[in-house]
Amino acid sequence: MTPRPIVTLTTDFGEGSPYVAQMKGILLGIQPELTIVDVTHGVPPQDIACGARVLADVCHRFPAQAIHVVVVDPGVGTARDILAFRSQIGTFVGPDNGVFGLVADRWPPSKVVRLTNPDYWLSPLSSTFHGRDIMAPVAARIATGVAFEELGELTTSICRFTEAAVEHSERQLVGQIVMVDSFGNLLTNLTAKDLPAEVAGQSIRVQCGDQVVEGVSTTYGDSPPGTTIALYGSNGSLELAVVNGNAAEQLGYRSGDKVTVTW
Amino acid sequence: MTPRPIVTLTTDFGEGSPYVAQMKGILLGIQPELTIVDVTHGVPPQDIACGARVLADVCHRFPAQAIHVVVVDPGVGTARDILAFRSQIGTFVGPDNGVFGLVADRWPPSKVVRLTNPDYWLSPLSSTFHGRDIMAPVAARIATGVAFEELGELTTSICRFTEAAVEHSERQLVGQIVMVDSFGNLLTNLTAKDLPAEVAGQSIRVQCGDQVVEGVSTTYGDSPPGTTIALYGSNGSLELAVVNGNAAEQLGYRSGDKVTVTW
Amino acid sequence: MTPRPIVTLTTDFGEGSPYVAQMKGILLGIQPELTIVDVTHGVPPQDIACGARVLADVCHRFPAQAIHVVVVDPGVGTARDILAFRSQIGTFVGPDNGVFGLVADRWPPSKVVRLTNPDYWLSPLSSTFHGRDIMAPVAARIATGVAFEELGELTTSICRFTEAAVEHSERQLVGQIVMVDSFGNLLTNLTAKDLPAEVAGQSIRVQCGDQVVEGVSTTYGDSPPGTTIALYGSNGSLELAVVNGNAAEQLGYRSGDKVTVTW
Repeated sequence: MTPRPIVTLTTDFGEGSPYVAQMKGILLGIQPELTIVDVTHGVPPQDIACGARVLADVCHRFPAQAIHVVVVDPGVGTARDILAFRSQIGTFVGPDNGVFGLVADRWPPSKVVRLTNPDYWLSPLSSTFHGRDIMAPVAARIATGVAFEELGELTTSICRFTEAAVEHSERQLVGQIVMVDSFGNLLTNLTAKDLPAEVAGQSIRVQCGDQVVEGVSTTYGDSPPGTTIALYGSNGSLELAVVNGNAAEQLGYRSGDKVTVTW
Repeated sequence: MTPRPIVTLTTDFGEGSPYVAQMKGILLGIQPELTIVDVTHGVPPQDIACGARVLADVCHRFPAQAIHVVVVDPGVGTARDILAFRSQIGTFVGPDNGVFGLVADRWPPSKVVRLTNPDYWLSPLSSTFHGRDIMAPVAARIATGVAFEELGELTTSICRFTEAAVEHSERQLVGQIVMVDSFGNLLTNLTAKDLPAEVAGQSIRVQCGDQVVEGVSTTYGDSPPGTTIALYGSNGSLELAVVNGNAAEQLGYRSGDKVTVTW
Repeated sequence: MTPRPIVTLTTDFGEGSPYVAQMKGILLGIQPELTIVDVTHGVPPQDIACGARVLADVCHRFPAQAIHVVVVDPGVGTARDILAFRSQIGTFVGPDNGVFGLVADRWPPSKVVRLTNPDYWLSPLSSTFHGRDIMAPVAARIATGVAFEELGELTTSICRFTEAAVEHSERQLVGQIVMVDSFGNLLTNLTAKDLPAEVAGQSIRVQCGDQVVEGVSTTYGDSPPGTTIALYGSNGSLELAVVNGNAAEQLGYRSGDKVTVTW
């Protein structure tokens, strides 16, 4: 028995949006054996960068047969392409607007197709909801075994997404906060790999605004409640946190704020 | 192999409410092969009209074997009836309080039963949670093939729901905002079918309060960010939107506000 | 055919958190036939008492083969144990920090294991997300039939959770609000069983702050909208509610506030 196919959904529709359910109805109408998993519908509206980061953090945790559908699509109904592509870690379907930039950098696509064959779309086609009318039915068809060649024209290009740069200088790195999680932890674009191996573990100073943290903690519970700490989070990135608190609210920082590491 | 049965849930319990999980536990205890889909739990508490509209927008996107359970039930435990009914597009279970009014208008029921047979309910029965104690176990039984005749008394009546009226006059329609979606788009009770075919496409003026929009856009991305536009949304209704913005917040309109179309 | 295994998830990650999806990816990678049910991800961060109550209210509604994973884990990465245990109503996996206290009181465990065998964990292991790296893979292994003896060391102790006490005196009980549900209903730690049988039904006076309610209602719809009522809710606990309103917002009470019953 082949395992049940998996489709994940990442959108900016908002948690509890009935638009998500419309997509699920279409998916299950074509392939009733699907396991559908919500990654999140809480990407801020039109925030392609956030969608790209969430997807890159989550997709490789799923088995490689999973099909990841991403609908953060401010250009819906305009000339932007819609793609499907395969890489070593999974299959992806969504608009070619940069939302796949990080995933395509980390796990290079082996096959890419522009979705141009309307035989696999809903009819009539709306101008404002291609997640439901194109991406959902195509993802379900891929799950039933339809070949990429049937879906449109093979291509190789995927829009890249320009990550915030990390500035390297002697004994110093400058990055920034790129995500705030639901605990209020402030995730940066810095990882241990950006640092010399001999200092990464502990002997660094992390500064954000006037907040200075000395050293890197192993986990939250190592310090008393209320302490501001720096640690490497579960996705590998350096983060600032307040033990049993909400760093974003209590420190007042947010995405885009600079974070400096010195040693 | 018959496809796995589908049950959808539409409630006013709030996203993340453990009451939803209690219903899922009962459903899976009776029919472990179910695919359960959340339509939304974000219907405002006791808002039967909103529940009716969400259901009518979503249910026909699912395959016809789906069973749609709706729990917006301010009269729980009082004399109101609980119904199950079938129509061409699916099966429905919930209170007979108007929440099925739009669905029953669009897709007339072929068979209706009042749920009066306690053999298919949980025991003991609570007075305040019939979604868990009556609707979930009955929906799961229907999914296993129990006939309507077993569940109670066949009937034909379903409470209708009075939609806000559209006022037609010469070269003018007056409708209203009936829903705000998660992007802040303002959905009205007006559709292209309410308009003469020769003007529906473009040459209309849409007014809400002191906001006037000339013409109908095809999609959001056709205009610069920040522009207020009118367009026919993915459910066919005329809507007002702010490109890459939130019309409800930025314009200050909400459900019940009048929308005038002239041509 | 054996029924599909069920895993439920109860966390403080927040609705729509991609951390939840990471756990689901791991679960489905090991056991693709799982039905995964979200109980809630809306437990307030680090609120072990709330997690314990939600779990105790929901778990017994699922079939006994379900595996309930709970990740309210402020001590992640510190010396706290992680447990799996079985009782008559289900199997449980999570940190031994009191979150299983109520469940273990009501349905005593028949077998308990401390998870100490890293063969069943993700590798590398993070210090901050054992829900993903230990609890999810172990739950999926249990669903595939791995014996408790393989997972670590059998034990018998489980951290208890001290419920707020109920004070009994002559013709009076004093309890407190322990949960506010999504309708704003104020759930207390008092049940009909705390009261003499002859008064439980109706002839009591319920007081919270300066709000006094005479008698117990059967359900919400028995009184006009806006009325403050007391009733036994769907989990059996005495609650205060405002008909078609939000008692928490309108009365201003919250968890921890005292509730006095006299007769």
